[in-house]
Amino acid sequence: MAKVEACRNYGAETEMVGVDFEDALNAARAHVEETGGTFIHPYEDQLVVAGQGTIGLEIHEQNPDLEAVIVPVGGGGLIAGIALVLKTLNPKIRIIGVQAEALSSMKAALEKSKPIRLPRAATIADGIAVRTVGATPLELIKRYVDEIVTVNEGEIAKAVLLLLEIEKTVAEGAAAAPLAALVNDKVAVKNMDVGLIVSGGNIDMNLISRIIEKGLIQDSRLTRFSVVLPDRPGTLARLSQRIGELGANILHIAHSRGFGQMAIGETEVELILETTGPEHIQRIHRALTGEKFKIKDET
Amino acid sequence: MAKVEACRNYGAETEMVGVDFEDALNAARAHVEETGGTFIHPYEDQLVVAGQGTIGLEIHEQNPDLEAVIVPVGGGGLIAGIALVLKTLNPKIRIIGVQAEALSSMKAALEKSKPIRLPRAATIADGIAVRTVGATPLELIKRYVDEIVTVNEGEIAKAVLLLLEIEKTVAEGAAAAPLAALVNDKVAVKNMDVGLIVSGGNIDMNLISRIIEKGLIQDSRLTRFSVVLPDRPGTLARLSQRIGELGANILHIAHSRGFGQMAIGETEVELILETTGPEHIQRIHRALTGEKFKIKDET
Repeated sequence: MAKVEACRNYGAETEMVGVDFEDALNAARAHVEETGGTFIHPYEDQLVVAGQGTIGLEIHEQNPDLEAVIVPVGGGGLIAGIALVLKTLNPKIRIIGVQAEALSSMKAALEKSKPIRLPRAATIADGIAVRTVGATPLELIKRYVDEIVTVNEGEIAKAVLLLLEIEKTVAEGAAAAPLAALVNDKVAVKNMDVGLIVSGGNIDMNLISRIIEKGLIQDSRLTRFSVVLPDRPGTLARLSQRIGELGANILHIAHSRGFGQMAIGETEVELILETTGPEHIQRIHRALTGEKFKIKDET
Repeated sequence: MAKVEACRNYGAETEMVGVDFEDALNAARAHVEETGGTFIHPYEDQLVVAGQGTIGLEIHEQNPDLEAVIVPVGGGGLIAGIALVLKTLNPKIRIIGVQAEALSSMKAALEKSKPIRLPRAATIADGIAVRTVGATPLELIKRYVDEIVTVNEGEIAKAVLLLLEIEKTVAEGAAAAPLAALVNDKVAVKNMDVGLIVSGGNIDMNLISRIIEKGLIQDSRLTRFSVVLPDRPGTLARLSQRIGELGANILHIAHSRGFGQMAIGETEVELILETTGPEHIQRIHRALTGEKFKIKDET
């Protein structure tokens, strides 16, 4: 939706067709045949690749001593242009491509030495979710790119969060893939001067919201557990009050009576709390256990 | 938490004291007396104000023709330094300060011509949540600042979201306040070349997540409504399937039987859906109504 909205705001007519890039590509070709328009392929086009090469010129201008550059790879146009320029200007520079593990079409193409059509797959790096790479960029990549590595969905999500928290930058999944490769040691660039291409920021805000939530859970800043308590008036109030005193914010509370393996006269409450981290969670657990609340089902 | 974490990552010892800036300030003074350390006040300090004035030098260097600058105002140091520099270099430039409506201590100080202590108040612009402004900056502000305006919490939240979506920048509440003032016509700068000071990005990720959620609700990208349906096996499955076919994502579903004003044999389901906007929601409502589902409680 972020990309569609952005296109519309620039005055473009947009039409949603099919479920992935390939469906949209076919629809665009049909539209061009019908209307006699000009078709611009996003990566199977020498001029587009040349245009993307200007990023290489800028990088070289800003930092001629860079030793490695990590680039997101979908159809291959972006890395082909950048690699062509940078290797020509400095043959010793390392150019590394990154793909989503779920759809590593460039790795497959390099193995067979030609574009291979992969089965449909979903990834949060939708900007590089391409099933068949371009033949034009593939030839350049064979010649100028040193290595293609892959990153998984969790690694991409964590990199999006890192860019938000540390760089204060909104990056889409594809754009965060190079950082994901770097921080997860997928690339051998220790002690080297490395450049990362953060290729775009068109990410749906609700996806960011979910990535943040997942990140907070991983960092133990959100926690979920259940508490078994006596089914008597006032007990729930006492539990909520105690949690408040312990400095945690209750985001969700659900009371389930009768289900689960509780004794008669007991009831179970599921809580989702906002905390400051693992120590805070332990402190809460200790305090509640000390007051005869039974804790179960931690996550 | 974002600021505390950032300080710790720079190697600082941090201690959490009290509930607001004033409590922390008093604790810091006590600590300095005890240890003989050097106290650096964040805004009641000529050297700090002078340092912040270098932002004015950078602005002038980058754009000497700027006609107005909008600056977040807490204690007043930042705007005092910037205003002093810019007005000296270009007396015609307009300098406008922005405060959170909830805590407009600079407006109060200007009215009484001296720092006034306001009652405690909460705002998402915690970076400018200062109850008593500085006497040093106040004198400079009287002389060099044209106007102080205020923005409310909703306006600040929406500006944080705008900066994320359009500028791809993570800004804290205080830093988004100038944009909030601009887009909500709080400042008379039509057709002028305006600069906004985005003063920091230390915002808690969970706050961002909530701001996004609120923004999505405002933009009708999240919707909540209830559906009354016959209490028979298979009806809920039919409802969920139909919603899926209509392209909406179910984020939450809750089934309440017996409560509410339903006839016997009817049951009520509360839904939270992710949609593409108001038209999509209308399409879903029409389709469901057309299939004998009764819709109520829209939000």
